[in-house]
Amino acid sequence: MQRMGATPVRRRLSKDARRAELLRAGERVFSERPFEEVSIDDIATAAGISKNLLYHYFTGKRELFLEVIRDSSRQMLDWTAPDLELEPMERLRASLRAHLDYAEEHATGYSKLMRAAGTDEEVLAIVDGARHEVVQRTLDTLPFPGGVAPPEVVLALHGWVGMVDNLTIEWLDDSHGLDKDGVCDLLVSLFVAVLTSAAGVPAPR
Amino acid sequence: MQRMGATPVRRRLSKDARRAELLRAGERVFSERPFEEVSIDDIATAAGISKNLLYHYFTGKRELFLEVIRDSSRQMLDWTAPDLELEPMERLRASLRAHLDYAEEHATGYSKLMRAAGTDEEVLAIVDGARHEVVQRTLDTLPFPGGVAPPEVVLALHGWVGMVDNLTIEWLDDSHGLDKDGVCDLLVSLFVAVLTSAAGVPAPR
Repeated sequence: MQRMGATPVRRRLSKDARRAELLRAGERVFSERPFEEVSIDDIATAAGISKNLLYHYFTGKRELFLEVIRDSSRQMLDWTAPDLELEPMERLRASLRAHLDYAEEHATGYSKLMRAAGTDEEVLAIVDGARHEVVQRTLDTLPFPGGVAPPEVVLALHGWVGMVDNLTIEWLDDSHGLDKDGVCDLLVSLFVAVLTSAAGVPAPR
Repeated sequence: MQRMGATPVRRRLSKDARRAELLRAGERVFSERPFEEVSIDDIATAAGISKNLLYHYFTGKRELFLEVIRDSSRQMLDWTAPDLELEPMERLRASLRAHLDYAEEHATGYSKLMRAAGTDEEVLAIVDGARHEVVQRTLDTLPFPGGVAPPEVVLALHGWVGMVDNLTIEWLDDSHGLDKDGVCDLLVSLFVAVLTSAAGVPAPR
């Protein structure tokens, strides 16, 4: 809770807006240098608020870091959520396009935070949770005989998430002469190839 | 250099053998708990040597950690190196089989260390270096018109490395009823599908 009469702040923001702003500042600072080299002061400065006010929102650097990762995962999941109003192939393309848009807009953060797993159980749990959610919601949009996806498809979709991430990281680092439309086309055809190969069923159209 | 008359050690080992043993102890300890919770004493104890002797080999915990990651990457690259004596499809299968063998044998370490990228530049550089090496040596075994791989293939192979890693991590965690042969078959057909889709050329046979 924010106390009455707390230190005056640069701008008056609602609690949610302030929290979101702190997460964005955290994303910026954490993607610029290693966790150990970041101080709470750095993040407060980047957000233009006092350290005391920051502590109203987060108990410390680690909690803020985990929230940044959670928030980035959540944002990516939201941006790329399949739009069930669209036809399957359009839905696929829209989702992959949104993924590339997000990655491009958060280039440094994407490459680093999406790989911020390390040997840290809590970070791994967030990253794994997001991966499972992508796999599950993709399975939900696919029709299978008897309603059950073959194990090959489930495993292939886990692989698919890693494929999209690594391909995107490489493309952000070196486009190899492909623009966003070209990468989007490539991802669409790779998804169809992967799914068809794993399921032995005709590709969605 | 190991000094004459140093503290007696449990067993007399050559410098290389001792170093390798320390890396294995490090891999075990680092895959069991987060970096911050590991002390040099833990690793010395796990290796059955004195802390002083450990400092003959590594300047500290971080250097040992980076060497463990380098060593694991190097081992995986060695295990899975394409055997050019084999026919293309057999070569592919042998390499993927070796990958699954390695991953199974180092189950905890594989899942964690292979994702130990985080926001740590030095770890990222090792992991990226290994990824680029896998992509390059795969490209070297493929014939392309004019000797130049299309950009779609290069990007797809970067994606492929992420696919293999994520699919393997999921399989180690939950087999989904597939044994190693089943996963190997799946990976072989996924590779062919990915390559064919990206290159628009017939699959290797």
